[in-house]
Amino acid sequence: MASTPRVVIVGGGFAGLWATRALARAAVQITLIDRCNHHLFQPLLYQVATAGLSAPDIAAPLRHILRRQRNVTVLLDEVTAVDTDAQQIALHRHAPIDYDYLLIASGATHAYFGQSQWAEHAPGLKTLDDAFAIRRRILTAFERAEAESDPQRRAAWLSFVIVGAGPTGVELAGTLAEIARHTLSKEFRRIDPSQARIVLAEAGPRVLSTFPEQLSDKAREQLQALGVEVCTGQAITAIDAEGVSFADQRLPARTVLWAAGVAASPLARTLNVPLDRAGRVQVQADLSVAGHPNVFVAGDLATLQQDGKPVPGVAPAAKQMGAHVARVIRSRLAAQPAPAFRYSDVGNLATIGRMAAVVDLRGLRFSGLLAWWFWLAAHVFFLIGFRNRLVVLINWAVSYWTYQRNARIIVGTRSETEKPP
Amino acid sequence: MASTPRVVIVGGGFAGLWATRALARAAVQITLIDRCNHHLFQPLLYQVATAGLSAPDIAAPLRHILRRQRNVTVLLDEVTAVDTDAQQIALHRHAPIDYDYLLIASGATHAYFGQSQWAEHAPGLKTLDDAFAIRRRILTAFERAEAESDPQRRAAWLSFVIVGAGPTGVELAGTLAEIARHTLSKEFRRIDPSQARIVLAEAGPRVLSTFPEQLSDKAREQLQALGVEVCTGQAITAIDAEGVSFADQRLPARTVLWAAGVAASPLARTLNVPLDRAGRVQVQADLSVAGHPNVFVAGDLATLQQDGKPVPGVAPAAKQMGAHVARVIRSRLAAQPAPAFRYSDVGNLATIGRMAAVVDLRGLRFSGLLAWWFWLAAHVFFLIGFRNRLVVLINWAVSYWTYQRNARIIVGTRSETEKPP
Repeated sequence: MASTPRVVIVGGGFAGLWATRALARAAVQITLIDRCNHHLFQPLLYQVATAGLSAPDIAAPLRHILRRQRNVTVLLDEVTAVDTDAQQIALHRHAPIDYDYLLIASGATHAYFGQSQWAEHAPGLKTLDDAFAIRRRILTAFERAEAESDPQRRAAWLSFVIVGAGPTGVELAGTLAEIARHTLSKEFRRIDPSQARIVLAEAGPRVLSTFPEQLSDKAREQLQALGVEVCTGQAITAIDAEGVSFADQRLPARTVLWAAGVAASPLARTLNVPLDRAGRVQVQADLSVAGHPNVFVAGDLATLQQDGKPVPGVAPAAKQMGAHVARVIRSRLAAQPAPAFRYSDVGNLATIGRMAAVVDLRGLRFSGLLAWWFWLAAHVFFLIGFRNRLVVLINWAVSYWTYQRNARIIVGTRSETEKPP
Repeated sequence: MASTPRVVIVGGGFAGLWATRALARAAVQITLIDRCNHHLFQPLLYQVATAGLSAPDIAAPLRHILRRQRNVTVLLDEVTAVDTDAQQIALHRHAPIDYDYLLIASGATHAYFGQSQWAEHAPGLKTLDDAFAIRRRILTAFERAEAESDPQRRAAWLSFVIVGAGPTGVELAGTLAEIARHTLSKEFRRIDPSQARIVLAEAGPRVLSTFPEQLSDKAREQLQALGVEVCTGQAITAIDAEGVSFADQRLPARTVLWAAGVAASPLARTLNVPLDRAGRVQVQADLSVAGHPNVFVAGDLATLQQDGKPVPGVAPAAKQMGAHVARVIRSRLAAQPAPAFRYSDVGNLATIGRMAAVVDLRGLRFSGLLAWWFWLAAHVFFLIGFRNRLVVLINWAVSYWTYQRNARIIVGTRSETEKPP
């Protein structure tokens, strides 16, 4: 008896989840492995970090999303190694699992350009835990400023530096400016939160460098209108608990957020295949790995050139890659040839803050209020099967009209300083 | 110039917040001090622990609640000592603060009857951090059971013991039964969550001992109908990582939750006044402390006999005490006599689970579905100024009809096992 082909998918992000769903009717048995119990709608993670949304608004348990897809088993575990010869993966908690087809879609984490000591002072934003840590730092900084009587130290608590002006950095900076100027106004008695300094530091020459230059300019204008100091062409040379240093100046700031470097998941290294500088796997045209036609890499962990430029590390590309891997597996099972992967660029959006965004739809470019509404509609629409789109919309509508942010709750402070009882 | 009288209020729970609000028009300057940045609607905390609600649904920043009350300064800090002679309190982070009137309402925490080694195996439920820890344990237990191949060890992961059958223990047990039987059904491939064992262990003779006996019986019936094993008259003699022991039996269970003992905040000890066995302050008829007419204690930290029985440690009593202290302070400022505190018993409610509750309204007693609707209406109504009553209602309505629980997201696992990067 020929047994059902075993497909192992590592990572329940956009690539892994889309591949899993696209195999719903295939005669395979799928094991989906993730370290977290939830799929995360990462494009809105900055809203959790800035207390606009709470975690369940943008995350749903993988088991719940896939409960009706009977050919999937979800495992909460971490893959420790891949043995492509034995066609087996090793897990932290479970026994090793054999595969006939393997998709690795474990994504990326933040990287500090070799300056790992910066990590403790400048947290990045990739997971819900990261988002809670950043929320805690931001809210605590205003509290510390209120408690501080020395003007210089108070100013340092009211100074926020965001390193990196890609989409995440721009979102964080714009939202922080809104919090300082509107959300927290009237709540403090000693400090004026609107005096907070929000600095967006970018080593390159412009913000949102993956957008056309005219939209970068628009984004800079909108950021400045919100009260953000945009500081391009200046690389950070040091980050410590007291602030950041550039080549020729020092900026005291007690809150530094990292939105600059990205590094591929370390799992790529266990594959023994060539990686690019960021640790990503150079995949074949069908998204398989050189020398291993039944091993695929998709999402942020994969790098692929198309028409002379790299496929970008964005959610639509990850979804398309995941779905493509499923298509290749189905073709192989039917002994048919599979087409090469083609990234279909649906456009590029970035939000900047209240009523400010930039949109680039294959050359149709616009910014400002209209772009913001477009961004909002697209993101609410794509919040997949979370059955709380309505709640998210209400939360947003309320916070839009009142400038309030619902989730301004500091939790988890104890665990940072002392062991739980 | 006579300076404005300084009122210091320690604790932003029901007693402290109600006292603060009741002094809104008094010619005093108030400093409200809390370790947390939020007021917590504690009666619904078990819903956060069981993933039915998310933190912002039941918590709101104290600063935000009080932003328009200009005579209040909110400090995020911890009181380390009270010097009643110097009329000064010492703080962890701020300089000491002088007071003319002091209200201590720092509440209670859980106590383990001197068995502090039980704490790590049987977390209690008092703060949002506690709720997240319990949520993590519950959700992780089902994941571990799914990963476990040994039947005995799997059964231990699927066994849950709740120690103490007061309102919190009953709520946790009933909700856990609902999660196991309904919420998680169909999501696992190896285990059947409805096989989970939920044991409610109570040393005393009945559940909900502060209710009339007939309602205790009703509660027990409703718990059993939900699938909870109610185990009264059996004191726990040991708790460890593998389970619990009674006098004559051992129950393997990897998840034990503590809803039994309560101990007053340790701040009471620094007052040098007589305390009861649970560490609470025996207050005078006007809620002041013996020998210190300008120092008051209210809420769970205070103990007071009325008509031969103690005023219960419930939210309405705390609110009434807080408002009474404000009244006494206003009377003193006007050089008028203040009446003694009288607790007005508005009734006693406890929810058991889906459509099950008991209600005792001054002798009008009912249980079941009607009691549940009454409980729901009362709790939504009392969710003070959180501007998200609507969202809470929608969340509840959706989870009621779908049996789903929105907030089943495991976060914070890393911080328990390793230091953040």
